[in-house]
Amino acid sequence: MSDKRSIKLGLIQHACSVDASREQNLAKAVDMIRDAASQGAQLIATQELFTGSYFPQTEDDARFDLAEPVPGPTSQTLCELAKELNVEITASLFEKRAPGVYHNTSVMIDPADSIIGKYRKMHIPDDPRFYEKYYFTPGDAPAASDNGKPAPDPNGFGVQRTRHATTGMLVCWDQWFPEAARLTAMQGAEILFYPTAIGWHKEEADDENQRQRESWQVIQRSHAIANGVFVAAINRVGTEDDLTFWGSSFVVDPGGQIIAQASTDQEEVLIADCDLSLIETTRRGWPFLRDRRVDAYAGLLQRMLDGV
Amino acid sequence: MSDKRSIKLGLIQHACSVDASREQNLAKAVDMIRDAASQGAQLIATQELFTGSYFPQTEDDARFDLAEPVPGPTSQTLCELAKELNVEITASLFEKRAPGVYHNTSVMIDPADSIIGKYRKMHIPDDPRFYEKYYFTPGDAPAASDNGKPAPDPNGFGVQRTRHATTGMLVCWDQWFPEAARLTAMQGAEILFYPTAIGWHKEEADDENQRQRESWQVIQRSHAIANGVFVAAINRVGTEDDLTFWGSSFVVDPGGQIIAQASTDQEEVLIADCDLSLIETTRRGWPFLRDRRVDAYAGLLQRMLDGV
Repeated sequence: MSDKRSIKLGLIQHACSVDASREQNLAKAVDMIRDAASQGAQLIATQELFTGSYFPQTEDDARFDLAEPVPGPTSQTLCELAKELNVEITASLFEKRAPGVYHNTSVMIDPADSIIGKYRKMHIPDDPRFYEKYYFTPGDAPAASDNGKPAPDPNGFGVQRTRHATTGMLVCWDQWFPEAARLTAMQGAEILFYPTAIGWHKEEADDENQRQRESWQVIQRSHAIANGVFVAAINRVGTEDDLTFWGSSFVVDPGGQIIAQASTDQEEVLIADCDLSLIETTRRGWPFLRDRRVDAYAGLLQRMLDGV
Repeated sequence: MSDKRSIKLGLIQHACSVDASREQNLAKAVDMIRDAASQGAQLIATQELFTGSYFPQTEDDARFDLAEPVPGPTSQTLCELAKELNVEITASLFEKRAPGVYHNTSVMIDPADSIIGKYRKMHIPDDPRFYEKYYFTPGDAPAASDNGKPAPDPNGFGVQRTRHATTGMLVCWDQWFPEAARLTAMQGAEILFYPTAIGWHKEEADDENQRQRESWQVIQRSHAIANGVFVAAINRVGTEDDLTFWGSSFVVDPGGQIIAQASTDQEEVLIADCDLSLIETTRRGWPFLRDRRVDAYAGLLQRMLDGV
């Protein structure tokens, strides 16, 4: 018997003003979330660190002042909004957990005015103009349970049971790691969310930029294919210092086909209807999860298998 | 200091006659391998089970007669050819290991007339018209070594040290599993080979066929991206019973870009120059292997993480 559930997603792609306050950037996102809800979106997703500029372009300890507790002011605003609009909202926040311990954190907020899930970015990049290892403590690994299997951890790879779908929140750099998608899908995620801040450096050639954007789409489409799930990527637009963010927010079905895509440079509310029955039919056609060689994967827990 | 090595690959894409003998199909491949060598190919790769029709379309115990030992008649012909042409050849064979134990096996043959590597297909499909679980015993899992790390197994995921590159042989259905690509790349593979027999069923709609072919390319491109390696896929053409194989053999660079691609329906020798220094430069730009969360991947050794 096929599963006839569906869900309408709303992805919020916008520019953030470097000069604007958190409140001003948040106000823009709130307006766009209202727009998405008015178009029928049931679950609405923000881009990564949507309340401000992409501050990890430089290492500056004053930027830690931007972090806030979770729950905190921004999540409180979004909780009230979710209740008012009767939608779920998944939002990307700069979390202050403790003095000196900050996370790049996603929350899932339900219409009953509460945070029902939290995920702290597990894979942290560090490249020129993306100095995230300076700012973000990696998310916790799942603890081992009594039976030797990893126990689900509310802040490691996990899923959130929303009204219309089981979701898996991941963040940006996680998108390059098949392991993250797999571990989340194995917990029952039907839709993977990747809020993102990725763009072109002003010194790179245009053809190289296009190749990077294509690779970024290919790797995320591959997670949909390998796991038979929907994937939603939400990226910002606009130029901030040396980076021009390439937008291109998109939603992919479980076969890897792009079913909705935004422009590279415009602020957009991207709406996508997801027929969740495609998960069952796609996995029946391509039963990859049936055939994993779990007896042969122990090497994945090593850095390299080079014998040194 | 950058690595300036390069290698020229030759991919052999052809039709197999259902009515022809193994010797006749092999003779066609030998001619095409000679052609590739004359074009300067240094390492030449066959499609999956290239000495005959794709027999797993039906379950018929007489088909086990097609299997041969490895080393055996076909590998012997190819060893002599590799020596004569001074090339490496990776070939896909139906191996008889023992009565009742048959494998879908790839071999790497060097110009010194010997088999220097063997891989037995680890992930075995079973779908209508692809009844491989009936024919092929899965490859062995790596044994555990004394220090708890998996020991390289000559017949599990592994690499082959050829003159010009370190290669990783995988086979067809393996291409849908990020784990297989990762475990092979972690051992030092610079090029992943996927000999393949994949095609369109006559009852499927054309647009669905095109989507399937695209997904097949996307997932293999993603392995190049995630691991910073070259990927070469070699597929047959022609119609056999209910299946029309879609050819489209291709080579992808470590950034995921297709650098050579064959047609969907023509017999072709596809030549691709691979600048192996791209592996180093690509991985410096996108250092995914640096950031794997090996402390958090234990769940990958489970079937599902659903608690039941």
